[in-house]
Amino acid sequence: MSDLPRVIHIHEEGPREGFQIEKAQIDTRLKVEFIEALAETGLRQIDCVSYVNPERVPGMKDADEVARSIKRVPNVRYTGLWLNKKGLLRALQLPLDVVGAIRITASNTFSVKNTGMTIERTIEEQRDWLAIYREHNVPVEWGYVMTAFGCNFEGEVPIDQVVKMTETLLSLAAENGVTLRGVYLADTVGHGTPLSMEQRIGALRDKWPDLRIGLHLHDTRGTGIANAYAALRLGVDQFDSSCAGLGGCPFAGHKGAAGNICTEDLVYMCHEMGIETGVDLGRLVECARMAERIVGHPLPGKVMRAGKDALASRKR
Amino acid sequence: MSDLPRVIHIHEEGPREGFQIEKAQIDTRLKVEFIEALAETGLRQIDCVSYVNPERVPGMKDADEVARSIKRVPNVRYTGLWLNKKGLLRALQLPLDVVGAIRITASNTFSVKNTGMTIERTIEEQRDWLAIYREHNVPVEWGYVMTAFGCNFEGEVPIDQVVKMTETLLSLAAENGVTLRGVYLADTVGHGTPLSMEQRIGALRDKWPDLRIGLHLHDTRGTGIANAYAALRLGVDQFDSSCAGLGGCPFAGHKGAAGNICTEDLVYMCHEMGIETGVDLGRLVECARMAERIVGHPLPGKVMRAGKDALASRKR
Repeated sequence: MSDLPRVIHIHEEGPREGFQIEKAQIDTRLKVEFIEALAETGLRQIDCVSYVNPERVPGMKDADEVARSIKRVPNVRYTGLWLNKKGLLRALQLPLDVVGAIRITASNTFSVKNTGMTIERTIEEQRDWLAIYREHNVPVEWGYVMTAFGCNFEGEVPIDQVVKMTETLLSLAAENGVTLRGVYLADTVGHGTPLSMEQRIGALRDKWPDLRIGLHLHDTRGTGIANAYAALRLGVDQFDSSCAGLGGCPFAGHKGAAGNICTEDLVYMCHEMGIETGVDLGRLVECARMAERIVGHPLPGKVMRAGKDALASRKR
Repeated sequence: MSDLPRVIHIHEEGPREGFQIEKAQIDTRLKVEFIEALAETGLRQIDCVSYVNPERVPGMKDADEVARSIKRVPNVRYTGLWLNKKGLLRALQLPLDVVGAIRITASNTFSVKNTGMTIERTIEEQRDWLAIYREHNVPVEWGYVMTAFGCNFEGEVPIDQVVKMTETLLSLAAENGVTLRGVYLADTVGHGTPLSMEQRIGALRDKWPDLRIGLHLHDTRGTGIANAYAALRLGVDQFDSSCAGLGGCPFAGHKGAAGNICTEDLVYMCHEMGIETGVDLGRLVECARMAERIVGHPLPGKVMRAGKDALASRKR
């Protein structure tokens, strides 16, 4: 019936996505406790901070302190996000894992608004990043196409443009002697549907049959988990997601912002369908409840509210 | 790639599902205004009330008054739910549409807890309902298998049991000279996954290739819209859903209860995938916002929070 993977790999985005958007400043100690709890669930990669300008993103003003405070456990990677060279150079000074990535936004308008750089300028910037990665022996893993499914400024992003940006990422890597692990399509503003997943993943597969594809999905319009399912059917086995659905704050009237798809809801669906995640769902649900206590308002995750009985039902 | 229907049909469940679970008594006038607003969206069937014991379900104590107060518009059916003969006889005295249905719960434990009747007793009860329908010239449309995907008391409900209950519904109809429009599978407590949708719909299709199937889905564990998508792929074109995701109250700590899948999120996904619903999404979003004002707390629907720009993006 489909090509469901046997195992999926999850990059947990909750701490970074969640704590950068909250209006109230979250206690640094609580951020660290949350990250440390997530590291006990079986998640193998946790995005902890953004290396961004604290004047633009006040929630990340303690990023360096968070990075220095985490008590690490083995076999977990603790990552951070940068959007420019300054952020990357900062990451290199801190004790978290620096995992090289290259990133291009498919919508030029969004690119300028989000990073201050046109697509053309971003491509040049990625060359600089690749040079820094080489200089510091940073492994380069994934290329990212942001706003791959649409943009609030430009509307629908053409499939051709997504293919072109993917080609650009692969060329950038090749000219620097780097083999990417694959390419992530990011539904940055939550425009995707199961059909657009199939169309865009299909277009990349037509051109590069062996290219590994990852998905970064936001649940802005309620289709997030359905989009993940559509991708699972096509054998996609790499997802970003966010514990409790952290990130964005649908219940506080932020304009349309919503978090990543919820990690524990994704894990629940996968486990029930026989797909392994390596994650202990019970522990992850505890983390989701902790996230709600930390931010002090309801978060959109569903499984954490479904009750222990429900979780246990399959075992009866 | 799939067998997506060109058009789907939606039974709106919001007023009944939503107002029966709220702890605060909702003003009768507001209930009626909400139902009247829903009737202006293009929805063709709206479930308005439950004919149940007000001592057990205080939120429905004004059901008769609601039923008598609605100003009807043409081409919309205004329905209500009964769980026993007493409720059915009450429905026949009121000015709403009485659409005949027969209902069996696949989990015996759930059946007893929800209706006080075993499965065997329920089958007898359905014979009585069919006799009343005949006597009052009530058209009989759908058979319903409740808890078709699992039960909080019994755990997973075997596929064979769902097939058996479907067979029972079809036999009950046949022995009364009734041809059902089809059979609804109800995920009463939200245990379903896309895979279990495929398995159960597949099992019914194997036995009855031409049987029309409807789905009543609750979004208890975040898979609701993904489940709907899995069913759409199999050509299912009949869904229950609930404006704003009304029903259950995930943000008030009700034990695991959650509403139906959200009508406007379902409509959004369908429209974006080229599937018609006959519903004006903008008007429906206004109803969802009205629902939040009426219940006085956040509801889980996503599209209503995604902003006008997002809704309009496709048109650019």
